[in-house]
Amino acid sequence: MNPSTQELVKPTIAQLQAYDPHKRPGHVKLDANEFPYPLPAAVREAVLQALAEVDVNRYPDPEAERLRQAIGRWLGVDPAMMLLGNGSDEVIQMLLMACGRPNGFVLTPAPTFPMYRIAAQVLDQRPIEVPLTPDWSLDLPSMRQTMEHQRPAVTFIATPNNPTANRFDDAAVGALIDAAPGIIAIDEAYHPFSGQTFLPLLERNSHLVILRTFSKIGLAGLRVGILLANAELIAQINKVRAPYNLNAYSQTAAEVVLAHWASIAPQIQEILRERRRLCDRLASLPGVTVYPSDANFLLVRFAMGGSKVWKALGERGILVRSYGDAYGLQNCLRITVGTPPENDLLLEALQAITAEMQPLLRT
Amino acid sequence: MNPSTQELVKPTIAQLQAYDPHKRPGHVKLDANEFPYPLPAAVREAVLQALAEVDVNRYPDPEAERLRQAIGRWLGVDPAMMLLGNGSDEVIQMLLMACGRPNGFVLTPAPTFPMYRIAAQVLDQRPIEVPLTPDWSLDLPSMRQTMEHQRPAVTFIATPNNPTANRFDDAAVGALIDAAPGIIAIDEAYHPFSGQTFLPLLERNSHLVILRTFSKIGLAGLRVGILLANAELIAQINKVRAPYNLNAYSQTAAEVVLAHWASIAPQIQEILRERRRLCDRLASLPGVTVYPSDANFLLVRFAMGGSKVWKALGERGILVRSYGDAYGLQNCLRITVGTPPENDLLLEALQAITAEMQPLLRT
Repeated sequence: MNPSTQELVKPTIAQLQAYDPHKRPGHVKLDANEFPYPLPAAVREAVLQALAEVDVNRYPDPEAERLRQAIGRWLGVDPAMMLLGNGSDEVIQMLLMACGRPNGFVLTPAPTFPMYRIAAQVLDQRPIEVPLTPDWSLDLPSMRQTMEHQRPAVTFIATPNNPTANRFDDAAVGALIDAAPGIIAIDEAYHPFSGQTFLPLLERNSHLVILRTFSKIGLAGLRVGILLANAELIAQINKVRAPYNLNAYSQTAAEVVLAHWASIAPQIQEILRERRRLCDRLASLPGVTVYPSDANFLLVRFAMGGSKVWKALGERGILVRSYGDAYGLQNCLRITVGTPPENDLLLEALQAITAEMQPLLRT
Repeated sequence: MNPSTQELVKPTIAQLQAYDPHKRPGHVKLDANEFPYPLPAAVREAVLQALAEVDVNRYPDPEAERLRQAIGRWLGVDPAMMLLGNGSDEVIQMLLMACGRPNGFVLTPAPTFPMYRIAAQVLDQRPIEVPLTPDWSLDLPSMRQTMEHQRPAVTFIATPNNPTANRFDDAAVGALIDAAPGIIAIDEAYHPFSGQTFLPLLERNSHLVILRTFSKIGLAGLRVGILLANAELIAQINKVRAPYNLNAYSQTAAEVVLAHWASIAPQIQEILRERRRLCDRLASLPGVTVYPSDANFLLVRFAMGGSKVWKALGERGILVRSYGDAYGLQNCLRITVGTPPENDLLLEALQAITAEMQPLLRT
């Protein structure tokens, strides 16, 4: 007799709730922290011309040599200190496969990007979450104490943090880098919107890993994640990397986009301007608290009920991310900064919704 | 003081020899079992047109809905019985993450595709290899005995097998499907060149998994692997899948290629014709043994020394795969069937090389 599906699957997986990418229809998509601008026409043209030359019948370059060289020039980093993944998701998984231990601890603050926890669970490692303080700062004493007592093999710190939108204090992150008993990975996915980076510390910290991504600067669809560390560690992590993990089209397209970086950079500035505008306008609405943002999104608390506002926005075709009550996120929505017209639609909708719900608020 | 890299990395990884993709320069590439034909011009045009419409700033469809529907129609399989991966490499890894156990056994015949073993090692699972018989058949009594005694959580059978090129006996594979105490994955990567499939057995075997890939039919560069199983098992394995594991360009391109399948299919026939021609011509050379092939490559033994022939071919810019002495592969080379002109170059070179080395053979 055949074994049942429950018997065939690892118990940790049978119990696991998978990551929900929240795929929903809607015409104003402010729910995934994507870059709101499609590629500029000239860049798209250059990408397509380069793709026309790709022999898709051949395996991609296993070392993604040309793209790594281009990223190295862009970031001012030796390509030997870099490996690329199929998005940050794969980079996180590779790091845990190489440096995490069976049943070993993986430390993160909470709330943060959920994939650190999910990747750890899938690999039979044990996530530990240390809550942020009420103003979303790192709880340095608790983090340090956990490091000392549980000896996590890997610690993840996203700065700016998702979904709280703030960057953590440089000195606090520095103190955790010093205290970490194993790998400490600083996820700088939102770096383009904060400018904060710990890259200069790589040189003298053999246990420091920095994550970057193309997903927040216009290439989410292509899945290109970057892991930076000292060359010796990279050589080890490379052993768990599937040899052809980055497809040929993504390698080529990302290289072309970097060559046209001058036409992407101004769009980042536009997002920063829009972030300020959104922040000011939202803060002026009744019952609305906007947390400071160093990223391309805002965390916003609605006194009239986050899920009610989320639903009302959804009915108008505006998608944002809502959260449960855990981690101090009750009534919070995460709203990606869109293009100016998208942001106008959002503001208009929220003005109407909050005005409508204000009587509710008073009772 | 910082921990050393050795301390930071999992001991199993520190000891691991990574998969070597054997990247070397050469103008006749017969070393990676790739499809030798680039996309037909009309198909490439259609692909590029479709890619022009992809909003790369947005995350890809996490369910790859349209591509799964297209593959479902192509294979005659319900899309609910399918999940897609970033190449077979990721599909193999997902299967082991979901259904393998820490320290659990993973059974394969040997020699076979090495990624089963490497993926198991990376995940702290224990590969067991049961040698094939001298004619490259499954050693059914040994395989069954190992299943009974070690209870492998996952068994991989590639048929046609790589690098031995033969398909296994239907009844033998069927017997292993019946005997498997856990998951049994039949890797049909080379199915297009053999016609053999165990798809009809999916219906009544909840522990059966079938792997397919786009890599051997012209899209190796795009990394699209297919896992087929009953819908309940798919739902579980989906939990370990990173939500955006298949990039938007690959989803789109693979869908377009399937829509033009009628122009790819004749190229497969051409490869089968060339396989017969290569096989006959090589078998007529002195000191050369060609094993029967049901795949798009040949396993060939050279009495004058496999590595000598490999080196002589390399000097002429012809790349093939060589093996060590393990698994009964001494003096064997794996040679992919190329285009007719590529195969002519190979035959010409091997004629010269074997003639030159024949005196060596006699001494």
